[in-house]
Amino acid sequence: MRLVVVGGVAAGLSAAARARRLDPSMDITVVEKGDWISYGACGLPYYVEGRVPRPEQLVVYTPEYFRRERNIEVRTRSEAVAISHARREVKLSTGETLRYDRLIIATGARQDRHGMEGVCQPHVFSVNTMADAMRLREYLDGTARPPRAVVIGAGYIGMEAAEALRARGCAVTVFGAGPHVLGRRDGKLTEQIARHLARFHIDLRLNEKVSSIEPGRVKDTVCDLVVLATGLVPNAEIAADAGVQLGRTGAIATNEQMQTNLTGVYAAGDCAEAMHRVLGRPEFVPLGTTANKMGRVAGAAAAGARERFPGVVGTAIVRVCGLAVATTGLSAGQARHHGFDPVAAFIEAREKASYFRGRKGTVELVADRRNGRLLGATVTGEDGVAGRINVVAAALSSRMTAEDFLHLDLAYAPPYATVWDPLLLAAQQLVKLLH
Amino acid sequence: MRLVVVGGVAAGLSAAARARRLDPSMDITVVEKGDWISYGACGLPYYVEGRVPRPEQLVVYTPEYFRRERNIEVRTRSEAVAISHARREVKLSTGETLRYDRLIIATGARQDRHGMEGVCQPHVFSVNTMADAMRLREYLDGTARPPRAVVIGAGYIGMEAAEALRARGCAVTVFGAGPHVLGRRDGKLTEQIARHLARFHIDLRLNEKVSSIEPGRVKDTVCDLVVLATGLVPNAEIAADAGVQLGRTGAIATNEQMQTNLTGVYAAGDCAEAMHRVLGRPEFVPLGTTANKMGRVAGAAAAGARERFPGVVGTAIVRVCGLAVATTGLSAGQARHHGFDPVAAFIEAREKASYFRGRKGTVELVADRRNGRLLGATVTGEDGVAGRINVVAAALSSRMTAEDFLHLDLAYAPPYATVWDPLLLAAQQLVKLLH
Repeated sequence: MRLVVVGGVAAGLSAAARARRLDPSMDITVVEKGDWISYGACGLPYYVEGRVPRPEQLVVYTPEYFRRERNIEVRTRSEAVAISHARREVKLSTGETLRYDRLIIATGARQDRHGMEGVCQPHVFSVNTMADAMRLREYLDGTARPPRAVVIGAGYIGMEAAEALRARGCAVTVFGAGPHVLGRRDGKLTEQIARHLARFHIDLRLNEKVSSIEPGRVKDTVCDLVVLATGLVPNAEIAADAGVQLGRTGAIATNEQMQTNLTGVYAAGDCAEAMHRVLGRPEFVPLGTTANKMGRVAGAAAAGARERFPGVVGTAIVRVCGLAVATTGLSAGQARHHGFDPVAAFIEAREKASYFRGRKGTVELVADRRNGRLLGATVTGEDGVAGRINVVAAALSSRMTAEDFLHLDLAYAPPYATVWDPLLLAAQQLVKLLH
Repeated sequence: MRLVVVGGVAAGLSAAARARRLDPSMDITVVEKGDWISYGACGLPYYVEGRVPRPEQLVVYTPEYFRRERNIEVRTRSEAVAISHARREVKLSTGETLRYDRLIIATGARQDRHGMEGVCQPHVFSVNTMADAMRLREYLDGTARPPRAVVIGAGYIGMEAAEALRARGCAVTVFGAGPHVLGRRDGKLTEQIARHLARFHIDLRLNEKVSSIEPGRVKDTVCDLVVLATGLVPNAEIAADAGVQLGRTGAIATNEQMQTNLTGVYAAGDCAEAMHRVLGRPEFVPLGTTANKMGRVAGAAAAGARERFPGVVGTAIVRVCGLAVATTGLSAGQARHHGFDPVAAFIEAREKASYFRGRKGTVELVADRRNGRLLGATVTGEDGVAGRINVVAAALSSRMTAEDFLHLDLAYAPPYATVWDPLLLAAQQLVKLLH
């Protein structure tokens, strides 16, 4: 039995490793178009910043490790250019073909350029792949003085890029095409982040769609360096050409076992859709943690085991100049957009006892007025933000109401929390608003 | 309508404040036997340690605040010595009586001395009330050199007392009556904590029940100071004498509205039982956060509103010499003791990216072999421990299985987490063990 995996970063290698664990006899080959495999792409902004000195430090396993320890053949600089499912063959850019019995497509996603002009200049960068980040880091390292930088895009990557460039001493302007940051349709969060960025002298300019990058400027802003963070599109073309069905979002459609419409063909990671459990429909959610989970399930399926990836609830966290900003489910604006009748409670409260240097953080909890069901949350602060958003993520998975949430038995001790956790204060207010 | 609340710390004042908010016209009197009201008793170890310089810093509101801002009469140094429900009267130690239409009993708990001899010596202390802590702090402040200290009891308070005394420079020995720390029937956790305490030169001696405190020593250990941390018993006597029904644990039995068997009489806080939602039966769980929640519900009930306190799942967190130790639900040992068939997965894993100084923490997840339902967890580490235990607490509330838990969509970014959160690694192992 031959398994071919196209893509050697998060999903592809999770899949290959899982398949190997479940089936020691399978013949497994992974092809990766780039030079680097098995790296934490979410760490790239911190490599650009310099906190991670060398690119190798982001790498989890090498091709040699996979060959030696897992009996998995990993080929870098091997781009899959076509799939013939009738012949069960993957064609590589080298002209070579690989036969498969099972195929896992983990081709990832690429920068969505939105038809922008001028993106191929030497001072224009992105931070999606190791190669992208290395080119940007080299540029920054080679610059005599910190350049004036523009980041195009006010999503998660845009925020991380802005912080990294600021840490390198750049003057930074961030352009967002729409009225909000982080794609959350959340005015309050947008304002909070704009204020926070301003404290770090990062200029956030919203409602300014960039359609072309001039040699020395973006719109009216003079700059030496541009980072594109304009979102991603799934690399689904070779799959589609082979007859693999795409979903509404343009990413590959799969079932809970990550199986596509073609027998023996699975998809995982940023090229595939994930079920959004709050919306109840598949969405394009390109995130590292999701990619790893999908890969694991696809690998199991390819090895004949039956595991499930029931989807996501939309959880994410990002550091914005030292501020932790975490979201899960839907903001009130998103909920309204999707036809819910949202009620939102917003509170600001201390994260732990003041004598343990507890600072104030914020929690916004959103529920549906019609049935009290929780729809989502936004948590910001310094300490325990990931933990708080994860509690809401668990609540969304089990379809808790605001009232259920109010009764959670959360941990308290002065070094770690307050007697009424900010989550519970928000829930109290939310229950009041719902009545 | 007259409401009398007996007890002015966490539950009593939460109750009074909630009743006032729901009924502006009620006549509300709170009687507290001690000098201090409305203080964070969980902060007392940090006052003893000196991190909190003055006792006033643990006080949330003063009697004057309640009188002026909430129209609530709070009397300190007023001990309720008897209740006559037939006459709807509370008798105070001063001889005075207070009439009530509604009564909330929030008399708290006191040190369980287990018939120990020698507890009334001047060098024997406890840290349950502000008065206790002030007496201990005064003793420490007045000692020329750090005394040799013995802590009797290896539960949560014992651990906090040991850390506080060590921070004051004392040589500390902790005696535990049973084989385990923190009352969790958990050998692995006990060993881990013993090793950690040893690093701070705190000697943990288990299976050594102390039945008497000699003037200059406890058992064979010479000491100048003894802290009793031998657990609590509910102050339920005046309630029982008045015909209020106690539960199996000796604490006051209530329904979800915190109502006792007597019409118009409610109980809240450490004197009352709380439903343990994993065990499905009422337990005695004297904790500050629980007391506040119970008080809030009792206050609402006294004001004629119908709120619910559905109980706890057994969540707690404690700092043990800088190590965060959090528990929820049942350990494997507890689960076995209560007739479950537990399966436990234990993992050690990094809490966040190494380049954000992520250290290793541990997670133990316990499920029932018969149906895969989660029963509890123990989490230790430095960062995000409260958040992790709270995710499990939420999962216990919604009766998740290990498989449900495996699919949680938890937040990931290198400054805050790892791509596979330690919780998910533990869940992966647990699911494997269950199959």
